[in-house]
Amino acid sequence: MAARTPLDADAILAATEEILRRHGPDKATVVDVARALGVSHAAVYKHFPSKQALREAVTRRWLDRNRDTLAVIAADRTLRPPQRLRRWLHAVLSLKQAKIREDPELFAAYGHLAAAHSAVATGHVADLLGQLTAIVADGVDDGSFRTGDAEAAARAVFHATAKFHHLAHAAEWPDPGIETQLDEVCGLILEGLQAPRRGDSNH
Amino acid sequence: MAARTPLDADAILAATEEILRRHGPDKATVVDVARALGVSHAAVYKHFPSKQALREAVTRRWLDRNRDTLAVIAADRTLRPPQRLRRWLHAVLSLKQAKIREDPELFAAYGHLAAAHSAVATGHVADLLGQLTAIVADGVDDGSFRTGDAEAAARAVFHATAKFHHLAHAAEWPDPGIETQLDEVCGLILEGLQAPRRGDSNH
Repeated sequence: MAARTPLDADAILAATEEILRRHGPDKATVVDVARALGVSHAAVYKHFPSKQALREAVTRRWLDRNRDTLAVIAADRTLRPPQRLRRWLHAVLSLKQAKIREDPELFAAYGHLAAAHSAVATGHVADLLGQLTAIVADGVDDGSFRTGDAEAAARAVFHATAKFHHLAHAAEWPDPGIETQLDEVCGLILEGLQAPRRGDSNH
Repeated sequence: MAARTPLDADAILAATEEILRRHGPDKATVVDVARALGVSHAAVYKHFPSKQALREAVTRRWLDRNRDTLAVIAADRTLRPPQRLRRWLHAVLSLKQAKIREDPELFAAYGHLAAAHSAVATGHVADLLGQLTAIVADGVDDGSFRTGDAEAAARAVFHATAKFHHLAHAAEWPDPGIETQLDEVCGLILEGLQAPRRGDSNH
C-alpha cells in the first residue's frame, strides 16, 4: 500500500494499526511501517521519532475514538441522567470487551502504556472522569441527583466501578455474569446518588 | 529451632512462614522446612505432600487470621450497621496494606494462589462475602438499610469496593489518597443502601 498522497500522521497511524493487528506489537517498528507505506523510514521518523511514540499515538487514536463514542452518550439529553449514567457505564465495559475480543494486540499495547503510567493512559482516565462529572452535574441540575459536589461524586462512581473499566480486571470481562454485576453496582450507586441528602450519620 | 514436641501441622506452618519471610518463596520447600525444624523431610511430607500444599496452607493460615479479625468487626453490635460496614471495609484495606508492607513475601504467595484461582483464595472471598452479607442483613433487620436482598446488596458492595480489596489493585494501596477514595465510595454505597426503595425508574 504505497502512499500516493503526501505522507501525513494519520496515514502512518492507520498503517501502524494494521501492522499491530496482523503481526503483533513487536513488528510495529518505524521501519516496518515505512516499508508497508512504501516510503523511507526518514519520512516516518519526521512524524514519530520512535516505536514508543508510534505506539502511544496509535493507542491514543483508539482511545480518542472510544472517548468520542462515550461523549455522545454522556451528552444525550433524551436520556435522564440516571439512565444515561447506567448506559454510559455499560458502554465503557462493552467498548473494552470488544477491543479485547477483536483487537487483542492494540489492547495489549494500551495495557503496556497504562502500566507505565503513560500520559496517554492518564489522559484517557481524565477524559472519562470529565464525562462522568458532566452526567452527574446534569443530574444535579435537573434534580435527579442530590449530591452536592458533582466532581467528588463522579470520582466515587468511577472508583466504585473499577472492576468494570480498570485494566487490572480485563481477565474478568469475558465472564458471562459481568454485565449483571455491573447492573447491581449501578443500582446501588444510582440509589446513592438519588438519595435525599442526609447528615453525616453514616460517617 | 529443633522440635522437641511431636511435630504437628501448626509447627510446620509457623516454621514455613518464618522461612518465607526471611528467604523468600523459592526457599520454602519441604526440605528447607524440615531442616529448620530439625526433622526428616518425611515427617513434613506426612502433613504436606508438596511445596504447593505448604504454600497454600501458610496462606490459608494468614487469611484465616484476617477473616477472624474482620469477623469481630462484622459482629460488633455496638456499631450500627452503616458505621460497621464502613469500619469493616476500611479494616479489609488496612489488613492488606499492612501485609504488603510487613510481609511482602507472604503477600506475594497469596497473589500467586489468587492468580491460579486456588480454592484458598476463592474460599477467602466467600468468607468475606459472608461477613458483608451478615452486616447488610443486620442493617435490614434494624431498619437502617432498605435493600430487599441482603446477599445481592452485599455482592454489589463487594464489587463496588474491588479497588480496595482486589489483589489486582495492590500497587495502588500505598497511595496516600486511597483511604479518602474508599471513604467517598463508602459514602455513596451507604447512601444507596439507606435510600428508601424506589421503583425501577433508574433501570
